[in-house]
Amino acid sequence: MRATVIHGPRDVRVEQVPDPVIHRPTDAVVRVVATCVCGSDLWGYRGVRAPGEPHRIGHEFVGVVEEVGVEVRRVHVGDFVVAPFSISDNTCVHCRHGVHTSCERAAWWGSPDHEGISSDAAQGEYVRVPLADGTLVVTPEHPDAALLPHVLTLTDVLGTGHHAALSAGVHAGSTVAVVGDGAVGLCGVIAARRLGAERIVAFSRHPARQALARRFGATDVVAERGDDGAAAVHDLLDGVGPDAVLECVGTKESMDQALATVRPGGRVGFVGVPAGGPELRVQTMFSSNKGVVGGVAPVRGYIEGLLPDVWAGTIEPGLVFDGTFGLDDIADAYRAMDERTVTKAFVLP
Amino acid sequence: MRATVIHGPRDVRVEQVPDPVIHRPTDAVVRVVATCVCGSDLWGYRGVRAPGEPHRIGHEFVGVVEEVGVEVRRVHVGDFVVAPFSISDNTCVHCRHGVHTSCERAAWWGSPDHEGISSDAAQGEYVRVPLADGTLVVTPEHPDAALLPHVLTLTDVLGTGHHAALSAGVHAGSTVAVVGDGAVGLCGVIAARRLGAERIVAFSRHPARQALARRFGATDVVAERGDDGAAAVHDLLDGVGPDAVLECVGTKESMDQALATVRPGGRVGFVGVPAGGPELRVQTMFSSNKGVVGGVAPVRGYIEGLLPDVWAGTIEPGLVFDGTFGLDDIADAYRAMDERTVTKAFVLP
Repeated sequence: MRATVIHGPRDVRVEQVPDPVIHRPTDAVVRVVATCVCGSDLWGYRGVRAPGEPHRIGHEFVGVVEEVGVEVRRVHVGDFVVAPFSISDNTCVHCRHGVHTSCERAAWWGSPDHEGISSDAAQGEYVRVPLADGTLVVTPEHPDAALLPHVLTLTDVLGTGHHAALSAGVHAGSTVAVVGDGAVGLCGVIAARRLGAERIVAFSRHPARQALARRFGATDVVAERGDDGAAAVHDLLDGVGPDAVLECVGTKESMDQALATVRPGGRVGFVGVPAGGPELRVQTMFSSNKGVVGGVAPVRGYIEGLLPDVWAGTIEPGLVFDGTFGLDDIADAYRAMDERTVTKAFVLP
Repeated sequence: MRATVIHGPRDVRVEQVPDPVIHRPTDAVVRVVATCVCGSDLWGYRGVRAPGEPHRIGHEFVGVVEEVGVEVRRVHVGDFVVAPFSISDNTCVHCRHGVHTSCERAAWWGSPDHEGISSDAAQGEYVRVPLADGTLVVTPEHPDAALLPHVLTLTDVLGTGHHAALSAGVHAGSTVAVVGDGAVGLCGVIAARRLGAERIVAFSRHPARQALARRFGATDVVAERGDDGAAAVHDLLDGVGPDAVLECVGTKESMDQALATVRPGGRVGFVGVPAGGPELRVQTMFSSNKGVVGGVAPVRGYIEGLLPDVWAGTIEPGLVFDGTFGLDDIADAYRAMDERTVTKAFVLP
């Protein structure tokens, strides 16, 4: 089959690789119907994080089950499934606490698991899915083409935005600001709105993303960044910062902006993969009681809760996809995301 | 009147200072009935934090109102009052959010306020109390000698322990560990118990404090520190860390211990005044979803809620006082706390 391999900075290639087969009785093999490129894929692509040896890449996919191991019970051949960006058994103590990313048997697409067996990654034609009963969520039906992008966001960005909002303690009536106008930040706006936030300020200087943020429920948009951005938000909110800030970038600057923006006693929900930081200003946190909660989003536990609103069209997170590419053109997809000519690239194998 | 002045490292003196008078119509003058020495007073005393120019010290006192300004409404001459460790108006937006330490008119005992007028500090015979209606809480009656130490803890350590527990998200059924066996940590045990925690592990290697922690509700005591301490707690809890860790020290080592101990998805509630740190391990926080919430405790907002349990004797936080000193001997009180021969020094003017 064909699958994407990253060889080094700005060097992703579609190559012939072995077709996946069932390794363990708890595996399934899924035919990928749609995948995409994540902002965090760009850390390796840009060389911010060393990509290491050539390896398979991509961690977001939906598809159809082609084969299951003899111990797989919940997932059946022919099911349409959503695969979250981490592999988990959905039964261990950490999964029961809702922290599937810390599953005792957690593994990551394209990386070796605890026994050293590498899994496939998402940007390919087929994927062997370990712990299929735990990892995969079956949808009510096969989604049509229009629904497909929305469903695909359940694998990562929608759940990650939701995690930012929950981590920041967003609830009905909250005031919220969102740092980051990428797909995760935009999904953070959706999540804050869905949780009943009364006022949502999106930081963005990009007209199309500003418009999408407003469509998703942002009540205000602020173009300034850093302390100027924080001051602009305070001006909008009678001089007081918002109760909650969603940090959806992962740089020192974005975290500082989030901490400068949130009101005393408020919380920053952070989901941006820290790239060379961020360094937390502990004295600021202490003196103003600004909490920092979040991390790599345990989206597996959120899929069932978010799926009905996606299926019903109540929320339209798939609008974050503004470019569609064939698998053979995935290098173009990476380039477009790197150059920010698309927010998020939708990829059809 | 006599009051305590810190001149430099290990140099506290009781001196004659001017009697306080009403400066503003919102002031009151309180005769101090009991005061004490705080662990955070030791940062200056030990020279960890530069003590600066000689200045008045002490931020915990209870007493009787002697005089009130013409605009004071809620507090009357003769009332017995609890003074929290920060001055606040109890009406601004931050106070209404429960973050009295970020009050728009916040000020600190012994320091200049926003207009440069210095207030008295607690370790003396009398104190001018700014914003008396906001700052002071009147007790139902004058407490007797037996109740006095318990009531005094409402000024700081009980509310601070309570803040750690709330910040860490402690609720009925929680598993909790407490880093720090000083007065705040011990009050953190009380608070966790009071909030319904099912399992409370106290870190302590000091027999008397271990015993007090158990009396306050600790179900287990761990003497090890650092990663060994974290591992010992995990052993007690079936290999899983506690839901919540109360960080009641304020060093890099104590914060690292707290982060190593808490389970994935759990929260560290931190109230130890950061002394030269702590540096937060952001990658640990991110990869395991370990949140850090807390800060300088807004105890003013907790006093009314905690007072009934103190008054009824349901909780006995005053047991943290294990040494009593006259004001003239306050240098001995500092020395005893510095040398850890007492947990917390009770001081009678």
